[in-house]
Amino acid sequence: MKTTFAPGPSQLYFTVKDHLKTAFYEGIPSLSHRSKEFEKIFASCTNGLRELLSIPEGFHIFFTGSATEIWERSIQNLVENYSYHFVNGAFSKRYFEIAQQLGKTPTITESPAGQAFNEYQIPDETELIALTHNETSTGVSLPMSFIHSFREKFPKALIIVDAVSSLPYPAFDFTKIDSLFFSVQKGFGLPAGLGVWIVNDKCLAKADLLLAKGQSIGTYHNLPTLYTNAKKNQTPETPNVLSIFLLAKVVEDLLVRGIHTIRKETEYKAAVLYNTLAHTGYAKPFVSDRAIQSQSVIVTDCKQHVEAITKALDKNGLVPGDGYGEFKKTHLRFANFPTHSKEHFELLADTLMGLKI
Amino acid sequence: MKTTFAPGPSQLYFTVKDHLKTAFYEGIPSLSHRSKEFEKIFASCTNGLRELLSIPEGFHIFFTGSATEIWERSIQNLVENYSYHFVNGAFSKRYFEIAQQLGKTPTITESPAGQAFNEYQIPDETELIALTHNETSTGVSLPMSFIHSFREKFPKALIIVDAVSSLPYPAFDFTKIDSLFFSVQKGFGLPAGLGVWIVNDKCLAKADLLLAKGQSIGTYHNLPTLYTNAKKNQTPETPNVLSIFLLAKVVEDLLVRGIHTIRKETEYKAAVLYNTLAHTGYAKPFVSDRAIQSQSVIVTDCKQHVEAITKALDKNGLVPGDGYGEFKKTHLRFANFPTHSKEHFELLADTLMGLKI
Repeated sequence: MKTTFAPGPSQLYFTVKDHLKTAFYEGIPSLSHRSKEFEKIFASCTNGLRELLSIPEGFHIFFTGSATEIWERSIQNLVENYSYHFVNGAFSKRYFEIAQQLGKTPTITESPAGQAFNEYQIPDETELIALTHNETSTGVSLPMSFIHSFREKFPKALIIVDAVSSLPYPAFDFTKIDSLFFSVQKGFGLPAGLGVWIVNDKCLAKADLLLAKGQSIGTYHNLPTLYTNAKKNQTPETPNVLSIFLLAKVVEDLLVRGIHTIRKETEYKAAVLYNTLAHTGYAKPFVSDRAIQSQSVIVTDCKQHVEAITKALDKNGLVPGDGYGEFKKTHLRFANFPTHSKEHFELLADTLMGLKI
Repeated sequence: MKTTFAPGPSQLYFTVKDHLKTAFYEGIPSLSHRSKEFEKIFASCTNGLRELLSIPEGFHIFFTGSATEIWERSIQNLVENYSYHFVNGAFSKRYFEIAQQLGKTPTITESPAGQAFNEYQIPDETELIALTHNETSTGVSLPMSFIHSFREKFPKALIIVDAVSSLPYPAFDFTKIDSLFFSVQKGFGLPAGLGVWIVNDKCLAKADLLLAKGQSIGTYHNLPTLYTNAKKNQTPETPNVLSIFLLAKVVEDLLVRGIHTIRKETEYKAAVLYNTLAHTGYAKPFVSDRAIQSQSVIVTDCKQHVEAITKALDKNGLVPGDGYGEFKKTHLRFANFPTHSKEHFELLADTLMGLKI
């Protein structure tokens, strides 16, 4: 069995197969989403996430079909006119474009691929500041101090963080952000088909305000409807019940390991790979500024050696992720998620070190 | 192992468990949705559906998170102002309400629960006529002749059919409709989390027209974006890959059985149950007009006997679906999907006939 390091859909979390057996044994796929049994699964999933990520009171957890959907829903529900987007790659850019498509007037500050944001001017009227914690396409992570710096400077704006390819690793300070989201096929190691959207009461109030003003905020997945249902541990539509069940189970497993352990292990594994890249001549981190090097998606610039490296890794059962977009032929990406073990990373490092190119 | 007759999420199609094993063995859950392997699965699924349902050229097949999502997307993409809704229960009503929520001016014609539509007046300016083939809450099916009668009378309007709880049973004439949709957790017997939306070129043209007029038609799941991706056998976002794979496999299985066989078997099973209900004193079909009795969701009015009947069925491993909404305590619903065998229905009939109440 090979181990894939693609940053998503990711290698499954190693317990998923067993949980799926349990799900079938317990008849989860045929469960009504209006049943008490489903409500228990919903509660177990959201309570587990709350504990794992230290999500405080006043924040609510909703399910969507994907994180892409949350891009759209968040603009619809949290923005009348002005959103502000930090863009440093394909995914943060797509979020900006969705705001444009929805007829808003988004402002963008762009930094070159792989580099930090140095200067920005956020207009006073900004309603939503959109930050992509981990730009999956290039391997840049925004420093937590950067993310947490906006609340004080822009107290009127809502702050939303796309943490699609970094959670559960980062420890956000929920007093400094208003919304956070991810999808399950990355760090949580589940099959794709579920987005998780965390919002606070200020977000709910903003959606209510926009609705009162006559703005269309969508229907079954607008914030008021998601909230009304979530209070009953339900969803507006028939959701991906199986995925919510699997997420609840994987979160339980992660809680047993302990989030602090998972975070430290993530940092250790990233260190092993970054250290290796510092010693090989033929591959280096695409992101050279250590302050913004991602811990969860490590992007390597391999230039003309992509094929040779891929072959060598494959011999040891390791499958790197392709580069993204314009970097498809020169980069390799290595996801560092909870399902990837220390041993996987050590083998990865050994293989890279032993390579004669 | 019990057999559930809940109309959805339904009893799984009996081959799903094996296909899931194959999926894990083949690494489907970790497959990139931009890979050739995914494109093959997408093509196999849509080509299979095309064959099974005789979907002609000029129609396109897209995937969403749910049929609820298609209610919203279809109004966004196919209606500038005026939709017309035939409402005879909770689900057809929700579709109407979504049009209201999206700021349109929908017109409604309502018939009492369990009864046919006798009179209606569709205004000339109607852009979309929305028909719910099978109202899951009450067990009314619109006759095919009724559904197919609108094209000629209203050649300017688009005609969309919600066939969530009836497909793959009904044989639609695609020259008489423009769009059709369903979700996989009913007749196809899959875990919930995927909607399937079939539209023709006229629908695509309408969405383009609305977009050109400056109307918001949504973003990643608007029709032009879904179409651009589907042409490449792709989806705009990371979809529920596993569900698309399972649907492809179940459709293959249904093709082996043959759609004509499945349809005739469905009618036989429905006849067995309706015939039984004609002979029992304590339970009768909620829908008395045979012309509109659903073949796929048979709703029985059991009055005060719901508990006694449920208990008797349970002893034989048969689990009926609850009544819907106001009928929760007096109705039982029996899904008649391809996963339910003749033997299931014969046992159901025998148990009901043998009941002493």
